[in-house]
Amino acid sequence: MADSSAPASLVRRLIAETFGTYVLVFGVIGAALFFAPDNGALPVALAVGLAVLTAAYAVGSISGGHFNPAVTLGAAAAGRASWTDVLPYWIAQIVGGLLATLTFGLFGVLSGKTLDFGAVSNGYDAHSPLGFSLGSVLVAEIVATAVFVLIILGVTAAGSTTAGFAPLAIGLSLTMVHLVMIPISNSSVNPARSIATAVLGGPDALAQLWVFLVAPLVGGLLAGVVYRPLFGGRK
Amino acid sequence: MADSSAPASLVRRLIAETFGTYVLVFGVIGAALFFAPDNGALPVALAVGLAVLTAAYAVGSISGGHFNPAVTLGAAAAGRASWTDVLPYWIAQIVGGLLATLTFGLFGVLSGKTLDFGAVSNGYDAHSPLGFSLGSVLVAEIVATAVFVLIILGVTAAGSTTAGFAPLAIGLSLTMVHLVMIPISNSSVNPARSIATAVLGGPDALAQLWVFLVAPLVGGLLAGVVYRPLFGGRK
Amino acid sequence: MADSSAPASLVRRLIAETFGTYVLVFGVIGAALFFAPDNGALPVALAVGLAVLTAAYAVGSISGGHFNPAVTLGAAAAGRASWTDVLPYWIAQIVGGLLATLTFGLFGVLSGKTLDFGAVSNGYDAHSPLGFSLGSVLVAEIVATAVFVLIILGVTAAGSTTAGFAPLAIGLSLTMVHLVMIPISNSSVNPARSIATAVLGGPDALAQLWVFLVAPLVGGLLAGVVYRPLFGGRK
Amino acid sequence: MADSSAPASLVRRLIAETFGTYVLVFGVIGAALFFAPDNGALPVALAVGLAVLTAAYAVGSISGGHFNPAVTLGAAAAGRASWTDVLPYWIAQIVGGLLATLTFGLFGVLSGKTLDFGAVSNGYDAHSPLGFSLGSVLVAEIVATAVFVLIILGVTAAGSTTAGFAPLAIGLSLTMVHLVMIPISNSSVNPARSIATAVLGGPDALAQLWVFLVAPLVGGLLAGVVYRPLFGGRK
Repeated sequence: MADSSAPASLVRRLIAETFGTYVLVFGVIGAALFFAPDNGALPVALAVGLAVLTAAYAVGSISGGHFNPAVTLGAAAAGRASWTDVLPYWIAQIVGGLLATLTFGLFGVLSGKTLDFGAVSNGYDAHSPLGFSLGSVLVAEIVATAVFVLIILGVTAAGSTTAGFAPLAIGLSLTMVHLVMIPISNSSVNPARSIATAVLGGPDALAQLWVFLVAPLVGGLLAGVVYRPLFGGRK
Repeated sequence: MADSSAPASLVRRLIAETFGTYVLVFGVIGAALFFAPDNGALPVALAVGLAVLTAAYAVGSISGGHFNPAVTLGAAAAGRASWTDVLPYWIAQIVGGLLATLTFGLFGVLSGKTLDFGAVSNGYDAHSPLGFSLGSVLVAEIVATAVFVLIILGVTAAGSTTAGFAPLAIGLSLTMVHLVMIPISNSSVNPARSIATAVLGGPDALAQLWVFLVAPLVGGLLAGVVYRPLFGGRK
Repeated sequence: MADSSAPASLVRRLIAETFGTYVLVFGVIGAALFFAPDNGALPVALAVGLAVLTAAYAVGSISGGHFNPAVTLGAAAAGRASWTDVLPYWIAQIVGGLLATLTFGLFGVLSGKTLDFGAVSNGYDAHSPLGFSLGSVLVAEIVATAVFVLIILGVTAAGSTTAGFAPLAIGLSLTMVHLVMIPISNSSVNPARSIATAVLGGPDALAQLWVFLVAPLVGGLLAGVVYRPLFGGRK
Repeated sequence: MADSSAPASLVRRLIAETFGTYVLVFGVIGAALFFAPDNGALPVALAVGLAVLTAAYAVGSISGGHFNPAVTLGAAAAGRASWTDVLPYWIAQIVGGLLATLTFGLFGVLSGKTLDFGAVSNGYDAHSPLGFSLGSVLVAEIVATAVFVLIILGVTAAGSTTAGFAPLAIGLSLTMVHLVMIPISNSSVNPARSIATAVLGGPDALAQLWVFLVAPLVGGLLAGVVYRPLFGGRK
């Protein structure tokens, strides 16, 4: 998606990742906190997808538009991103998510409201909307993240004639994944999103957070490793 | 949608079809099992369309992006796919759907939950959401599949200036078809999707499965046969 | 949107208009009859827009993708279509709509169900969902159709660099118009759609049908006449 | 997005801005007044985004497709629009919004109905759907408008290879913003939209209107000022 021959500096790319992850968390958590209680979960799935779609069109040409540590890991494993970028990208993404949390926290403080970050945190057992167990949630998050990252690697493959559609496909695939995963775990597939709500989500959200760090990263890594053997270098 | 002069090997194309059909069934059945009970049927129609849209952008350039035995049959009948590809494509698609079923079954087992695959299977009479009869469902599935495959053949016609939009149009036309067909038959228009739920859907789903093998295939074949006489070779 | 230098023959163009209008009415009336009762009116607005979006990508390069007598009239008034095409296009569009009605009627007959075409017909007073009067509905249909046709004329202007997006924009603008107009009049903005339900909609739907022939045609004509003075020949 | 080397005359550009803002307010207020009471707030968020998406494809190449005083201010601050255009654009946008109000007012008068423009006006405290305070609403409108305008500046950056997608991304980002902001303030992020409802919204809407003039303009200005330092001149 690069529109310039020289790559952007690392600082500029990290700013883009922070911005994009901010928009992603702003969309998904804002919709989950305020919109979903009266309108159901569909708007949450739409908000997260449209946030990624639009942020990727806006700054994807600078940083690659990952906005998600699992995507960065998968891209590195597939040879699409530099391994030296992984840690700085992760930090930028986590910071972006936390800045969104801070924004919502500020809304709450200024209105004297306590926002229920626990209810919009990712979880299993009692914290899974349909009561799915740890094992189910682990498998589901690994599978869903792997599907998501395989789609990303497919639509951003070099030589694709539909490269301009990559942000569209990536955003809408995230919406699709949420239409399956919200009832299972509130849908993470993104450690930066999970961290952003767990920090203010109470002890249970923090205690279960490891699942939503490990499973998406495993899923992203798996996708990065199998992409080339499955779908080849030609695409 | 091919972005390379040499076609991919058959094995690579079958992997792409298995992956795409997996994503399709993951989206539609996941949304139907978990999301629909609290949010209605609209998310199901969106999930299936977005699954096809995004999988077709990801791997459509490898295999053509059928993800559906009725589409493969229609493409062959219209001279767009080789007849020798039909059977291997069908097997790959059915396998993809069954792997998605297996994934959901695993979620259930790991949580000690019994997932109601019967409720999300395609059916008529008591198994049609609005109680439509066998005759209605047969006609509806033939017509809806024919419309869907005619749209696919139109948007993927050689020489089209909007070829990059083909996956978008195909996915969204499947959403549109589901917005009519879910209340009639739970919307098949795809034998691989119907097989994927019938295998765990109980005796009634299995007994009615033939309808959702025959009718979509008839509809797809019909579309493939009439496309050129109706809309010509020029597009 | 033509992808060939030679225009298609009139017969081929009329087949394309019949097909596209069939898909449009199949989507909007199918969703209104079956999906809306349990899921509200949003799916109807999505179905009609996605039907036009996808049919226009499929056959728009053949016929221009009007699927609506008011669009054909506006295109002729703006110098985008030949006046000699107007009458045959209208007939093809009305036939397409009636074939969709026939399809749904057949579903009903085969299941021994009486489908309520009156409830999905366009209307005013007691037949307006929110009870709007004849005067309101006339003005609303004229304004909404004019907006819709002005958008179509804008996105299909010669020399546009975003011509490939025209079907997308046209379909989604029709969804937007329905998100305003369904509660007012069940949203016509298309005489072929209104005829398709009125024929089986009972005496009131037939008695009010003239409104949904006259108002959309007036709106389309108005748009066609003012487009060039307002937005110029360059685009 | 210009498709001609010579820019359109100011009059033509102002007509385009009036038209686009008319469509925007027609979509969002029409959906809020008529569709939302029975279908929730999701259709409102979709209507406003699809209105901007389609109007930007239709006339964005003429005027830049701002349809929002905060966008015009941000574009000027970022060096994308001429400062001398700001005031005439603002007037054109406000006029477009008021013409939409007039249209709905006319619907009401012709049906003897009193439309509740107060309920669809932007507000805080008792006029915020979830009861957010002035401080929260000020911050939220500034942040949301800044995010929206940063995305616009990103997707319309010179040299972008995905320029044709700009209207799509802009419209869908506005939908995303509304999926967060409707429960907070009914979502302004656009002074022309707020003026359009406040004029008939009663004394409270008028008394609170200043918030929805100041905050979006501050947010847009902020975005325009920080865009280049954050994301650079190369894009």
